[in-house]
Amino acid sequence: MNEGNIKNFINELESSINSNKILMDDIILKLYSREPSGIEGKAKTVVFPENNDDVSKILSLAYKYEVPIYAQGSSSSLSGNAVPLKEGVIVSFERMNKIKELNITDSIAIVEPGIRIDELNINLEKSGYMFPIDPASQSVATIGGAINNGAGGLKGAKYGTMKDWVNGLQIVLADENGTTLFVGCKTVKCRKGYDLTRLIIGSEGTLALVTEAVLRLTSIPESIVTSLALFNDLSDLLNAFIEIKSSGIQPYIAEFMDSKTVEMASKGIELNFTPEGNMLLISIDTTKESTDKIKKFLENKLSKHNANKIITSLNQEEAEEMGLFKIRRNLFAAQVSMGQVIYGANKKLQVFIEDIVVPPSKIIEAVNKVRDLGIKYGLQVSIGGHIGDGNIHPSVVYDPTDESTKDKVIKWYNEVMRIALELNGSISAEHGIGILKKEGLVMEMNYYNSSKELSIMRSIKSIFDPKGILNPGKVL
Amino acid sequence: MNEGNIKNFINELESSINSNKILMDDIILKLYSREPSGIEGKAKTVVFPENNDDVSKILSLAYKYEVPIYAQGSSSSLSGNAVPLKEGVIVSFERMNKIKELNITDSIAIVEPGIRIDELNINLEKSGYMFPIDPASQSVATIGGAINNGAGGLKGAKYGTMKDWVNGLQIVLADENGTTLFVGCKTVKCRKGYDLTRLIIGSEGTLALVTEAVLRLTSIPESIVTSLALFNDLSDLLNAFIEIKSSGIQPYIAEFMDSKTVEMASKGIELNFTPEGNMLLISIDTTKESTDKIKKFLENKLSKHNANKIITSLNQEEAEEMGLFKIRRNLFAAQVSMGQVIYGANKKLQVFIEDIVVPPSKIIEAVNKVRDLGIKYGLQVSIGGHIGDGNIHPSVVYDPTDESTKDKVIKWYNEVMRIALELNGSISAEHGIGILKKEGLVMEMNYYNSSKELSIMRSIKSIFDPKGILNPGKVL
Repeated sequence: MNEGNIKNFINELESSINSNKILMDDIILKLYSREPSGIEGKAKTVVFPENNDDVSKILSLAYKYEVPIYAQGSSSSLSGNAVPLKEGVIVSFERMNKIKELNITDSIAIVEPGIRIDELNINLEKSGYMFPIDPASQSVATIGGAINNGAGGLKGAKYGTMKDWVNGLQIVLADENGTTLFVGCKTVKCRKGYDLTRLIIGSEGTLALVTEAVLRLTSIPESIVTSLALFNDLSDLLNAFIEIKSSGIQPYIAEFMDSKTVEMASKGIELNFTPEGNMLLISIDTTKESTDKIKKFLENKLSKHNANKIITSLNQEEAEEMGLFKIRRNLFAAQVSMGQVIYGANKKLQVFIEDIVVPPSKIIEAVNKVRDLGIKYGLQVSIGGHIGDGNIHPSVVYDPTDESTKDKVIKWYNEVMRIALELNGSISAEHGIGILKKEGLVMEMNYYNSSKELSIMRSIKSIFDPKGILNPGKVL
Repeated sequence: MNEGNIKNFINELESSINSNKILMDDIILKLYSREPSGIEGKAKTVVFPENNDDVSKILSLAYKYEVPIYAQGSSSSLSGNAVPLKEGVIVSFERMNKIKELNITDSIAIVEPGIRIDELNINLEKSGYMFPIDPASQSVATIGGAINNGAGGLKGAKYGTMKDWVNGLQIVLADENGTTLFVGCKTVKCRKGYDLTRLIIGSEGTLALVTEAVLRLTSIPESIVTSLALFNDLSDLLNAFIEIKSSGIQPYIAEFMDSKTVEMASKGIELNFTPEGNMLLISIDTTKESTDKIKKFLENKLSKHNANKIITSLNQEEAEEMGLFKIRRNLFAAQVSMGQVIYGANKKLQVFIEDIVVPPSKIIEAVNKVRDLGIKYGLQVSIGGHIGDGNIHPSVVYDPTDESTKDKVIKWYNEVMRIALELNGSISAEHGIGILKKEGLVMEMNYYNSSKELSIMRSIKSIFDPKGILNPGKVL
């Protein structure tokens, strides 16, 4: 890109939108140019649109001057999805964060992309409804970011991912006029030719910018019974899960963590039980009248498969009091502290979180193979994830200045993806492709003899973004 | 299309797949060239592939000779979706009807497209799981047809449509080699670049042919409480529904029918109650222990809003014994008999079923407007639909040889779509675009100032089907 182009872009933009929406301060640029995974880029400016018109003006000018555009929510994704690889312009949606309509009868919320998922849910709670996609980052993650990244979460086995909860989108195209389209519809059902809504969801800001979303809502379960069970043997844990699932019960949450990770994640938190072994955390949604039955059912299945400790709460308040989710919530911190044990407490460490998915029935094989691979490379691998939908997040923490380990991590990362494919899974479940998984995506297409998909995707990209200015260098 | 081309196509096909898979008998051609809506076309041959290789050979030859290809399931769609408009080749999937894998732990079924939805569910029932999309035609409708048509059903408010229940698809492209791709994945979560799976779903066989589907399953609810309530006033019915919905309860089924339609649909069926008034049929899924609570809740809300009769069953067996679904099931027959009252019993009549959707909160306005419109045109309009998701199916029955009425019906049909748009709805909820709604689709794009969508869709069509041989004349 021509250096002059971006100057002309900024000059012309300044004359068409209020200059307080355009920031070029170095600290701001640095802050918005990195994501928590540690991946960094270099933006030339950050623009904060306040409405659809602003976005339309930005894209029309970006088209004119061929300026790279990076849409950003809270940048809490982990595959480098929103990082400005080229010297372009970040479009931050943090000022477009309004709820425009909440309608329980219609089970929809119409929102701007910058609203945080948690904030939306706080607004919904009093009506007994929720937006069920809950990435670990939901306290900061925005709806727009979750749309771009096709996010999932803890409740994925029951509720799927973003693609299942968006009825329609207002988008702006990177064309001469910054054309606004409304794709999809406001209702849960509709047939409007080809499904452009879901083409945008998960496209990581490479096809269009989202300026408004019609979200589908669902009711909050009346009661949620949760068991935390600890197993010496990981295969016992899996068999317990399989038996629960085969009883016609669709768990609300089903998380697991291997024993080493449990040990790490339990350090420094107060618990009134001793957490030893591999952990299964399973929640089942039910009615108030049936909580006792579900408790008995869970405890029966878990002890049948040799759980050495089972703690069950009858509702979410009880689960909080008992601290059943504490270990799970401490996972990220645990991964960092695992690194500190190896590298020392003062090192700036990088946590590298994998995000593969396999059919839940193959999870035990996947975990064993991932663990063996860690041993092969001499890496400390922590393993946990969403057993309900087969999504595993093996993680390593390392010192990014240690080139030899970094090299091992990259090899390990690629081999983990290969394991997923060999078990009928996929290289990415919910963190997306971004920069980190571009080769993985090619690997997956080739593995399934489906490489023409990539050329189809490239052709679709050129329909939407003929000049290739939207999040260049990502996904494809 | 050149007459010689189709001959060459058939000749070459006969030498590459078994000739018992190719039928050209006149009766067969006539049978496969029409759908229940009465729309007819004219196929030159019907091919019955038995595996993916057959489909690949068919499409490769169709590409070579530029022969129009019409994929068909059971042809139970209602917008002319699968009718061979041009003299081409029907590819019937009725011999590709196997279940290849059922896995409850993974909550997936891998099936060939020709399997009927009902048959799949019979196979799933013993495991306590189901495939939740239940179009009225599910006893004949195939999974492949439901995928192509993005089908919905009675449980749409809770479970959405086909797009929400397909993890991945094996498809064959209309290119030189009849290339096979596997789009999407086997797991409920995955990120594989752009979402080609949902681009295929609802594309009505215009982008590729589906040869295998990985379906997502869910558990059958433990208990289902159903109330049938009759209201003198349609707005009371709607208010009762709104209050139920606002209590944080997501109904499993919520159907309604206006009083005239109830009267018609009750004729000739045995009921132990007198069905008078507008009918709301509402089911809520719950646990065994909570059925009484739900019954009281429903009866309380329904009587508060002046229901003049409420009959409630505690489970599905009871609902069957009480005949709660009988009136709903008799709807289509009722529509025919309504016509017979007007035109006489011996006439060959056409039932024209509209398929609009509005936000559920706008359903009362929609119903009133649709009814007024019927009066304006002097048509007998029967109105019912899925109140839970705002999908209304106003229908008229008429004598297709009566040109003046036919003309009125077409005008009425277009105005009904306009009403949907003016109430923030869509021109099609679940029957698709096919032939009948092509103008409606353009109307909707224009209404939402979103007409560039059509050119994007056309470009996508040319990526997948460069010679335009897949279901030509449909959707766009």
